[in-house]
Amino acid sequence: AMSYVVRPWALRDLKDVMRLIRVSIGGKSLREDGFGRDPKFGCLVAEVPPDQRSKDGHTVVGYGLYFFTYSTWKGRNIYMEDLYVMPEFRGRERGENGIISGSPSETKLMSKIAENRCSQMKFTVLDWNRAAIDFYQSHGAVDLTAAEGWHFFHLKGDALKQLARGHQGQ
Amino acid sequence: AMSYVVRPWALRDLKDVMRLIRVSIGGKSLREDGFGRDPKFGCLVAEVPPDQRSKDGHTVVGYGLYFFTYSTWKGRNIYMEDLYVMPEFRGRERGENGIISGSPSETKLMSKIAENRCSQMKFTVLDWNRAAIDFYQSHGAVDLTAAEGWHFFHLKGDALKQLARGHQGQ
Repeated sequence: AMSYVVRPWALRDLKDVMRLIRVSIGGKSLREDGFGRDPKFGCLVAEVPPDQRSKDGHTVVGYGLYFFTYSTWKGRNIYMEDLYVMPEFRGRERGENGIISGSPSETKLMSKIAENRCSQMKFTVLDWNRAAIDFYQSHGAVDLTAAEGWHFFHLKGDALKQLARGHQGQ
Repeated sequence: AMSYVVRPWALRDLKDVMRLIRVSIGGKSLREDGFGRDPKFGCLVAEVPPDQRSKDGHTVVGYGLYFFTYSTWKGRNIYMEDLYVMPEFRGRERGENGIISGSPSETKLMSKIAENRCSQMKFTVLDWNRAAIDFYQSHGAVDLTAAEGWHFFHLKGDALKQLARGHQGQ
């Protein structure tokens, strides 16, 4: 059987994590933001032994990226920004109840993130990503958009600049 | 006309911010998490001069609470967790185009949060809160749930504990 170690990333994993992210802010930023004096996020990697490496020769086959958030109701929460495992290592299985239970590597990454003492773990998922939603819900995650009507907004680019200037102009 | 100062909170504002939050994690946590060696969030307050104070005698009439998040696409982002102004200081106005433009105090708080150098500002809004959505959209915010299908999930309580234990048991 496949065996996984899930551990915090180290500098030597930077290249592997870059490969798994694919589209990225660049290795320099990632290194500075992740390994600087005041790290802006935490990162875990899932690693297999050399004899179980991927077809193209990699042993780091997944990663999870997270950071802490804050709520005046709940104090410190954790936000899971990314959870990714290479397709050939996913090996999804259906549990007793027929629900997709996710691959052991994904579950291990998410479990390890959950070990951080927090009252809640939050994350966003695209509504077409049924496999991911099934996986998260099989672990007890609740869709707050469907259940309570929470919508996720962003403000960027010129709109954000104008908003910031608006204040300075007053 | 009403005049507002928007400034970072100080220890003396703790009681006022507690009053505005109403339901809260408690003043001790809020103080430790906000003013500790490694602050877990930033907080701004909106203040009026003494002669414009609220009916019940307060000069701190609003607050905005935010923290930094991280994305492997965009680097450092800002998350606006709370934006609140006492109802009597909201004075919503309709702009030229008939769109509710929000009160000056709310705009000032959000503008000041936007001054932090970030590529995006993110936040969540309940879908029944039409006034808030109109206000945010009038400043160029995009509803990513409606536009792209992002759903907001959380995992807490026993489910979160079980997930964390699951890892430790392996």
